[in-house]
Amino acid sequence: MARTREECGVFGIYGDPEAVQKTFFGLHSLQHRGQESAGIASSDGEYIRCYTGMGQVGRVFRKGRGYLDKLKNPMAIGHVRYSTTGSSNPLNAQPFLGEYSRGQVAVAHNGNLINASLLRDEYEAYGHIFKSTNDTEIIVHLMAKPSHVAKRDPLGHVLNHLQGAYSLVFLFSDRVVAARDPYGIRPLCLGRTEGGAYCVASESCAFDTISARYIREVEPGEIVTLDKNGLSSRFFVTPGTVTPGHCMFEHVYFAKQSSIIFGENVHSVRKKCGHQLAREHPADADIVIPVPDSGTSAAIGYANESGIPFDMGFVRSHYIGRTFLAPSQDMRDLAVKLKLAVIGEVVKGKRVVVVDDSIVRGTTTKGKISSLREAGATEIHMRVACPPVANPCFYGVDYPTKAELLAGDKTLDEIRDFLEVDTVGYLSTDGMLSCVSLPDDHYCTACWSGQYKLPVNIVVNKFTMERHQMQLFDDVEL
Amino acid sequence: MARTREECGVFGIYGDPEAVQKTFFGLHSLQHRGQESAGIASSDGEYIRCYTGMGQVGRVFRKGRGYLDKLKNPMAIGHVRYSTTGSSNPLNAQPFLGEYSRGQVAVAHNGNLINASLLRDEYEAYGHIFKSTNDTEIIVHLMAKPSHVAKRDPLGHVLNHLQGAYSLVFLFSDRVVAARDPYGIRPLCLGRTEGGAYCVASESCAFDTISARYIREVEPGEIVTLDKNGLSSRFFVTPGTVTPGHCMFEHVYFAKQSSIIFGENVHSVRKKCGHQLAREHPADADIVIPVPDSGTSAAIGYANESGIPFDMGFVRSHYIGRTFLAPSQDMRDLAVKLKLAVIGEVVKGKRVVVVDDSIVRGTTTKGKISSLREAGATEIHMRVACPPVANPCFYGVDYPTKAELLAGDKTLDEIRDFLEVDTVGYLSTDGMLSCVSLPDDHYCTACWSGQYKLPVNIVVNKFTMERHQMQLFDDVEL
Amino acid sequence: MARTREECGVFGIYGDPEAVQKTFFGLHSLQHRGQESAGIASSDGEYIRCYTGMGQVGRVFRKGRGYLDKLKNPMAIGHVRYSTTGSSNPLNAQPFLGEYSRGQVAVAHNGNLINASLLRDEYEAYGHIFKSTNDTEIIVHLMAKPSHVAKRDPLGHVLNHLQGAYSLVFLFSDRVVAARDPYGIRPLCLGRTEGGAYCVASESCAFDTISARYIREVEPGEIVTLDKNGLSSRFFVTPGTVTPGHCMFEHVYFAKQSSIIFGENVHSVRKKCGHQLAREHPADADIVIPVPDSGTSAAIGYANESGIPFDMGFVRSHYIGRTFLAPSQDMRDLAVKLKLAVIGEVVKGKRVVVVDDSIVRGTTTKGKISSLREAGATEIHMRVACPPVANPCFYGVDYPTKAELLAGDKTLDEIRDFLEVDTVGYLSTDGMLSCVSLPDDHYCTACWSGQYKLPVNIVVNKFTMERHQMQLFDDVEL
Amino acid sequence: MARTREECGVFGIYGDPEAVQKTFFGLHSLQHRGQESAGIASSDGEYIRCYTGMGQVGRVFRKGRGYLDKLKNPMAIGHVRYSTTGSSNPLNAQPFLGEYSRGQVAVAHNGNLINASLLRDEYEAYGHIFKSTNDTEIIVHLMAKPSHVAKRDPLGHVLNHLQGAYSLVFLFSDRVVAARDPYGIRPLCLGRTEGGAYCVASESCAFDTISARYIREVEPGEIVTLDKNGLSSRFFVTPGTVTPGHCMFEHVYFAKQSSIIFGENVHSVRKKCGHQLAREHPADADIVIPVPDSGTSAAIGYANESGIPFDMGFVRSHYIGRTFLAPSQDMRDLAVKLKLAVIGEVVKGKRVVVVDDSIVRGTTTKGKISSLREAGATEIHMRVACPPVANPCFYGVDYPTKAELLAGDKTLDEIRDFLEVDTVGYLSTDGMLSCVSLPDDHYCTACWSGQYKLPVNIVVNKFTMERHQMQLFDDVEL
Repeated sequence: MARTREECGVFGIYGDPEAVQKTFFGLHSLQHRGQESAGIASSDGEYIRCYTGMGQVGRVFRKGRGYLDKLKNPMAIGHVRYSTTGSSNPLNAQPFLGEYSRGQVAVAHNGNLINASLLRDEYEAYGHIFKSTNDTEIIVHLMAKPSHVAKRDPLGHVLNHLQGAYSLVFLFSDRVVAARDPYGIRPLCLGRTEGGAYCVASESCAFDTISARYIREVEPGEIVTLDKNGLSSRFFVTPGTVTPGHCMFEHVYFAKQSSIIFGENVHSVRKKCGHQLAREHPADADIVIPVPDSGTSAAIGYANESGIPFDMGFVRSHYIGRTFLAPSQDMRDLAVKLKLAVIGEVVKGKRVVVVDDSIVRGTTTKGKISSLREAGATEIHMRVACPPVANPCFYGVDYPTKAELLAGDKTLDEIRDFLEVDTVGYLSTDGMLSCVSLPDDHYCTACWSGQYKLPVNIVVNKFTMERHQMQLFDDVEL
Repeated sequence: MARTREECGVFGIYGDPEAVQKTFFGLHSLQHRGQESAGIASSDGEYIRCYTGMGQVGRVFRKGRGYLDKLKNPMAIGHVRYSTTGSSNPLNAQPFLGEYSRGQVAVAHNGNLINASLLRDEYEAYGHIFKSTNDTEIIVHLMAKPSHVAKRDPLGHVLNHLQGAYSLVFLFSDRVVAARDPYGIRPLCLGRTEGGAYCVASESCAFDTISARYIREVEPGEIVTLDKNGLSSRFFVTPGTVTPGHCMFEHVYFAKQSSIIFGENVHSVRKKCGHQLAREHPADADIVIPVPDSGTSAAIGYANESGIPFDMGFVRSHYIGRTFLAPSQDMRDLAVKLKLAVIGEVVKGKRVVVVDDSIVRGTTTKGKISSLREAGATEIHMRVACPPVANPCFYGVDYPTKAELLAGDKTLDEIRDFLEVDTVGYLSTDGMLSCVSLPDDHYCTACWSGQYKLPVNIVVNKFTMERHQMQLFDDVEL
Repeated sequence: MARTREECGVFGIYGDPEAVQKTFFGLHSLQHRGQESAGIASSDGEYIRCYTGMGQVGRVFRKGRGYLDKLKNPMAIGHVRYSTTGSSNPLNAQPFLGEYSRGQVAVAHNGNLINASLLRDEYEAYGHIFKSTNDTEIIVHLMAKPSHVAKRDPLGHVLNHLQGAYSLVFLFSDRVVAARDPYGIRPLCLGRTEGGAYCVASESCAFDTISARYIREVEPGEIVTLDKNGLSSRFFVTPGTVTPGHCMFEHVYFAKQSSIIFGENVHSVRKKCGHQLAREHPADADIVIPVPDSGTSAAIGYANESGIPFDMGFVRSHYIGRTFLAPSQDMRDLAVKLKLAVIGEVVKGKRVVVVDDSIVRGTTTKGKISSLREAGATEIHMRVACPPVANPCFYGVDYPTKAELLAGDKTLDEIRDFLEVDTVGYLSTDGMLSCVSLPDDHYCTACWSGQYKLPVNIVVNKFTMERHQMQLFDDVEL
Repeated sequence: MARTREECGVFGIYGDPEAVQKTFFGLHSLQHRGQESAGIASSDGEYIRCYTGMGQVGRVFRKGRGYLDKLKNPMAIGHVRYSTTGSSNPLNAQPFLGEYSRGQVAVAHNGNLINASLLRDEYEAYGHIFKSTNDTEIIVHLMAKPSHVAKRDPLGHVLNHLQGAYSLVFLFSDRVVAARDPYGIRPLCLGRTEGGAYCVASESCAFDTISARYIREVEPGEIVTLDKNGLSSRFFVTPGTVTPGHCMFEHVYFAKQSSIIFGENVHSVRKKCGHQLAREHPADADIVIPVPDSGTSAAIGYANESGIPFDMGFVRSHYIGRTFLAPSQDMRDLAVKLKLAVIGEVVKGKRVVVVDDSIVRGTTTKGKISSLREAGATEIHMRVACPPVANPCFYGVDYPTKAELLAGDKTLDEIRDFLEVDTVGYLSTDGMLSCVSLPDDHYCTACWSGQYKLPVNIVVNKFTMERHQMQLFDDVEL
């Protein structure tokens, strides 16, 4: 599927003399989870220093920035933030660093708090002021509340106030703390370096880069502390009292193929989905081609199952950046052509099965199909390795509005006609869930089914401030 | 005198279609009050937008930045911040924009709050969190406090909590508000454009640039509101109950020669100081030369009074920026030589009176004297148009420590020997005060006399956070 | 194979109101041929304007640079230049623009002139001066020579002086001219837009982006002129008198999979090479995985031929840029891990065939193999879709020295041991040539065979100036 | 006078371990002669390395650029180039570095060659190609001509081909060479550091910065070589056969007040001009004020001679950079107000003599006068310390066209009316020449008198290329 808005990635490590540098490499591996901004906070045991910036991690921490090559702090956390098509706000770059009565704390957050507005309204009524417009800042306000500070487990107490999806990594001056919401909606896992330092990351691919070993997931409702005593764990809710709701879309699209999330490998799940898709929606065709790169795993599965040869119909360009031109020719077609070149020789005169992981708006898919037609494909059979996306997500996936979703209000026939394909086939929800190992009800499938883990009658206010506050420290040119 | 740390400058305007652009030009005129950072906040009547950045106003708002050329908002405020020699923190750039229960507010502050640490400690104990390390953020916390919001005059109530020097300009979504501390330590004045819009600025020179007319000062203890009803005024302390303490160092060094502050023109005051200096410390010499540019006014006065011809002994370079080289020759001498070139022809074989406005550390002065000697001056008589600076300022002037002040622990003879001059003469405090129009006790002369307007037994903690928090969004290169 | 130094790409178009913009998109498609610098020269029919810069085309022509969005000139040429690991020289960015007695001319060059040093020495002896150190400048000197200017076909006369590989695109004030060396070493082809404008490009993939149609190659020894009369052709050598020597490495590695070069599709050739490789070097294995992206085509062929399932063992990161850190862990391993993540699930406990298009140094290949071992692969069978690279190229491919080439002085057994694989198999030269359509002797295979099309007893001096002249106008950061 | 286009500055030094760094500081002192671009070329005895860039020297050689802090080469030359209001061309930045049959040479040039076009046409007819559009490149072409290379004194032979103004500094791999045209139109002088290294600079102020001592001028028609044998001299024309033509406008406006040029101090000459101006054009007034900074020297002289008190009526801002805004209010007035603030107190109710060094267009002068009127000056007497500028300069001063010159076609009465002053008085040519020490006919006064040292029937073609060629490597933003 074409990239729309994405999620975030978090990382943390304690007890490594190269903690800052390893955080950099860890974030690099998590870059697919967000390219808008990046940041690292680290502590020397006493003081926390934080550096954030707009753009990809390699740009933010380019030579001389952020003291990355000099800091020898033994603990650090980092964050990459999703990219948006429009305006963005540097004040929202994370980690969020604040100071309260107990000293400094930095927070990196992946997910979405559905009661952030409610809590913010309440704290503003208490006289609190806010600087950013993201839902992470409220967590620090909750932590700073005197009655909360006085609790036996202040952080656990605070987390009980939060509703929604949150995989959190905190940096205090002397420790790294990780926590995950009771439903375990977003992934978060633990690793250990060859040198014995514990680390935490959104996906296990971050461990591979720093030669660390995957240990296990942070459990839903668990708080894990990494400090001078090693790793310790506690729960802020009674374990097992709610059924988990792991985001199935992580497996379908977000996570990197090489990662282990929710206990199993992403590529394997996607390949199984391709097999299942071939069983559910066979096609009489000459070749199977993926929409690279996210559709490749499923396409391999589809080809294997169907016996139709796998081939490359598209070549992806590695040099796509922002293009400022408003070309006179149709923008959609051009964007597709710049990113994906068709190999005419492969598809000319062929009946082609095109496999993608998912379809959101469908506009770029339409462009790709059109390119194949121009190149001489005689039949095009669109196969999608998940069900039709038809509902909003309140837990951190930034889909367009229902009206903009291809499957929002269209029948399958209308979708087929819109895309101008010969046939279209979506994987069924049951079929999809048959490809993962946990019980079906342990996954959140709300974007397909409309069934949410938490009640949605809460008014989820987007902060109105976001559109207006632009306290930019510098523009991002790239 | 050589530039050390300097103060800040503030500006505000209401009811002009070019409010944002005029704020830019106003800040440009106030640039001498601070070159570290600059920022402008403006409102369209509903939402406030704020753009700040590191460096001079022309750099921060260079082409395409801050939407300066596009915003047609009818009200705006701006700020320029003092430069420091060492590290700086972009999070401290002003205006400070925050949101509380009554909506958005932006604040620009010139001065120093001596009880900021106390108040911050108190609010942290209430559970508040802080993002910046400057003393301006606490003002918004005070404004946000529910019991304060409920007062009849919430802002007046809040200002009564502040101790120290503050010339403040606030931007609410629908109005600009200016306020000045009860002692009127820092200047703040009102003007009106040809089109009838009211404006407020640290110095009247900001009005000249935008063809506005100087009206009067904002009175000590006064709150002035500029809104759709024009200008309205109220007092938050009973007027006349304390004797003002206008900072005499503003006249001596900070303010621009063309400005009117504390009711009279700066250049005229300095020239009178030069006359008085000649009367107090005559010299048997051939020429009078200023240390440009800040010593020029006094030197003209000295020359006129003494009858000794005025001439240019130094030429100031207009192209001094940051120099990154660590040259092998003595840094002090080189810095002086890059900035001030001696005209050998003028001083060779001459007995020279050198007039400067003030001396702080004395190191660069020593370099200048040395250049004159090299160029062949036979006698050098140093004349300083204010008394010896020997005490710290708690109201916004960032002097070095007493140990670093030339007059901190040296006798006049020691100063003469240190500077390697033939004679040295400082203007007396009485002499200096005879050159201004208000009663002697209406001025703060603490940096010379050690007598403060407010008790100094308060522990003035610098925030420890400043040294450690470096949430930089971008480096400033130039 | 890992990217070493690469070649260049050229583009030209005449008679399109969006000539400049289409050149930008054409260069974008050719970006894989060079990322060091980019440039566009265009003419309004009278004057030529040229803008070049360091970095990728999207960076060089980012918003506001090069007037890209404003120029409506009807003709333009462009160039992308290869990237180097070390220093680079902005003066060598192309197109090269010069002025001589016949007016302005801009030149874009792909290839390498083996007699450039000889000619340069000769012209320096005539009193000519040189500004750049690339071999393109000498072409303009030759064109400017009065006796050459006087010839019936001045350009054809000049081209007869050149020895080596050259695909050239010239821009004169009123026309675009393309020429290709008599051996046709580098590719160069003609296309036509939907609007009827002729264009020329290194590879046909540049036409796809601008919705142009591929017509044919520029023939070896041909000069093609695009002007107001359309397309006209002439030859500067008698056609057919020399056997062509198309660079086979273009098919193996350089060219984009979607391009047609030397008359056939690159992906198809590579896939055939994979089939042939499977026939020559079968393996008893569980899966076939490519080294993405350049090994993918051959891996598909290998899998199809062998019947061993194709799978993804590596995931390529799309966010690799320059990394400034000198990490303490082994650099080679880290570079591999940042760029290619292993999908452990796929290779664990498996006997794996790894297919790459070619191996140059072998160091990164070794790193990739090591990653697979760590992930649990039980056997690794390395298969390379071309013969061992063992000789230098004098026609534009910038290989390392023979000593640095993996196959430079190693036997197959030594290579197997160096890479730490179970077996290694290279495609034979005959096998490789059986996968392309032209007669075997129409290709240059010198880097494998050591047999060159032109005598190599010529002293190919690299210009000594290059190392020393650094007339940089700006550094390139990203 | 307001800055229009300006000249250039050159510097060279041989035999100092900090040659590169001292060239940087020397250029810094010469910055007033050009702010458009800067460059330094240095040699390690074998190879020349050159770094140029757009903008002021501090920007071009900011941290990390040009290897300034690392190069320990024993010889270097440098150049600062004039600023233009409009487009500029980085290819014209100097030193110009080229390679010819005798190796590398770098050239820095101050002046203007009136036969550059003729020579360029001739060399293009010989088959030479040109990269830049400045008149310096032709010098290297002349040097490279084989018949010139063979001469006994090749450089002297080449210089005899040049007509116009030229103060040149060459860097060969093993020596620095300085030369000045036979009329000595532009200044060029020799100095020696404390360490004994010889240096050469446009003005002696460059020596002051690096603690070098002024020795003497390079004589008209002299070539000075600085190499391992120290300083040696020869003449390329018979000395004394032509009367010199030192540019009097250097004394009036260009040169720094602290410099010695043409054998005497600039400030002293200007002050004498002020005395003479007071004798020729007395005024019945209350105060004398300068237009800072260039009018200050003359104003001091005027005040001394007339007995009317000297005062500051204008304060110059030190923070003027480029302003991108197109303000709606009158641009001229705003530019004046941003740069010069009037001290109302000084001029209110006064009869004011305003002294400037010269008037070119007169538009900004008109703005300044208008500011004084607004501030309440009752009478304004404009006094100009040189005659009316009415003719173009062909030797390096870039005046506007005659139609744009205030005195181009206006009578004194018309000038008075245009400026809206009460009286206007220009210094007479004889009066001006009475203030310098050499015989009257040793100066060029063509811009006032229209009498040139060289015949002007030569067609002085501006190169047409300049407007069109824009091979920018990077834009200059600041």
